[in-house]
Amino acid sequence: MKIDLALDIGGTHMRAAVFHEDQSNPSRQKRIPTYAGGQTSLDRLVGLIREVTPSGSQVRSIAIGIPGTIDPNSGAILTAPNIPDWVGIPVARRIEAAIGAPAILDNDANMAALGEWQFGAGQGHNHLVYLTISTGIGGGVICDGQLLRGKHGMAGELGHVTILPEGPVCSCGNRGCLETFLSEAALVGIARERGVIAADEGMAALRAAAQRGATDAHTVFEEAGHLLGRTLAGLVHALDPEIIIVLGEGAADWPHWAFGFEPAFRAAL
Amino acid sequence: MKIDLALDIGGTHMRAAVFHEDQSNPSRQKRIPTYAGGQTSLDRLVGLIREVTPSGSQVRSIAIGIPGTIDPNSGAILTAPNIPDWVGIPVARRIEAAIGAPAILDNDANMAALGEWQFGAGQGHNHLVYLTISTGIGGGVICDGQLLRGKHGMAGELGHVTILPEGPVCSCGNRGCLETFLSEAALVGIARERGVIAADEGMAALRAAAQRGATDAHTVFEEAGHLLGRTLAGLVHALDPEIIIVLGEGAADWPHWAFGFEPAFRAAL
Repeated sequence: MKIDLALDIGGTHMRAAVFHEDQSNPSRQKRIPTYAGGQTSLDRLVGLIREVTPSGSQVRSIAIGIPGTIDPNSGAILTAPNIPDWVGIPVARRIEAAIGAPAILDNDANMAALGEWQFGAGQGHNHLVYLTISTGIGGGVICDGQLLRGKHGMAGELGHVTILPEGPVCSCGNRGCLETFLSEAALVGIARERGVIAADEGMAALRAAAQRGATDAHTVFEEAGHLLGRTLAGLVHALDPEIIIVLGEGAADWPHWAFGFEPAFRAAL
Repeated sequence: MKIDLALDIGGTHMRAAVFHEDQSNPSRQKRIPTYAGGQTSLDRLVGLIREVTPSGSQVRSIAIGIPGTIDPNSGAILTAPNIPDWVGIPVARRIEAAIGAPAILDNDANMAALGEWQFGAGQGHNHLVYLTISTGIGGGVICDGQLLRGKHGMAGELGHVTILPEGPVCSCGNRGCLETFLSEAALVGIARERGVIAADEGMAALRAAAQRGATDAHTVFEEAGHLLGRTLAGLVHALDPEIIIVLGEGAADWPHWAFGFEPAFRAAL
């Protein structure tokens, strides 16, 4: 039996999914902490792969998505703020050596864009903008069936498109990036500051408040949706996509975003 | 003797340039009104080509740039506000039939981007953002050595990236496009409104005022440069270019733009 493996590496958890040949739904999934037990995260990844691989099966391919930027020429990991020990390490080559199967490694949002294009919401659309809204904001752009990588592997970093230059300082060091308004941390920060949720509450409380119709909670999402709408409308004029796909945990809040998103998006088109 | 012909079609003038084989500077140039003398503009174009072609020479290729959008699949002219009689006409095929040489037709800013990439400021840079600042704002984007066309041939329409959704109405029908702040008409309109120049004065007067150091004239350019800086910084995060090329008549005013551009661009990166 031949299988393909998909690995999603985060700063907190790493997740594995096993796909039997020609199946697009995983037959098995497992999540473990990225850092634990005195092992290196790379050793933990090898262990995870071995654990999820059914005995007697042959690993055909391994795809590894990481929260970082990859040199488009050498494949080296250039930056990875959440898994800093991976920078400069030839991870794909080490996994190939340990497992004995071909491995590729790329930016997680780029891989998600490619996945949605080939197997998900983007099927049949060769011009696609993909956005993940979660702890941070990730992006991937496909133009004419090609993933945009850019000169330094930084293309599609849509979370770091500046929407308000005088805005809050971002984790990247700049000001007013889309991520400073849309990420979970940003929404929770704004909600706490305004007293919408208590200082010890988080995203779950903000979501619950919006769901029960609290106006101030709703406004937090609406304002963020407005900025997202402006940003994506600008990208439509630069990239002329067929489809914009918004996923990630934050996409579950779409009904709340949409109140701000739709008028801003339409006004800006 | 083999020659290549380049044609630039505008709403007011059409221009021809003749290139002898393997020369990147034109050996001859000519400009005529697009509409005149009861002829169709297409007949005038054929006449212009015949007039500039040296007798005894063989036309090897004809490239035609137009201010409009081209269907990336069929090559049909979809929109062309300044030469509306060309929409739906198979111009390249008609020119080929009349002249007996292969002809291609594309958006003028896309062709300018390709030209700068192959022969100009962009040589050696496979990731490039090109902007023309003139009567309007045109744009072209090259990623990994490919011109971005998008689904409907509208990619790279950087003049219509929305920078302020509540801004002035644009000729395209939307509000707050970059073009509503940076085009000659926009700058002249703002300068007249503020009394920087008289109601019957134009770009030349605004330029002269800025050049002699008039603060209010300088501010008009500086504010426009600020918005340009913000817009291009956002595109850097989406496209990760190696080089941004700004040309067109408006680029001559760069020293004035730059005061607003540079702080905004740096702040937004």
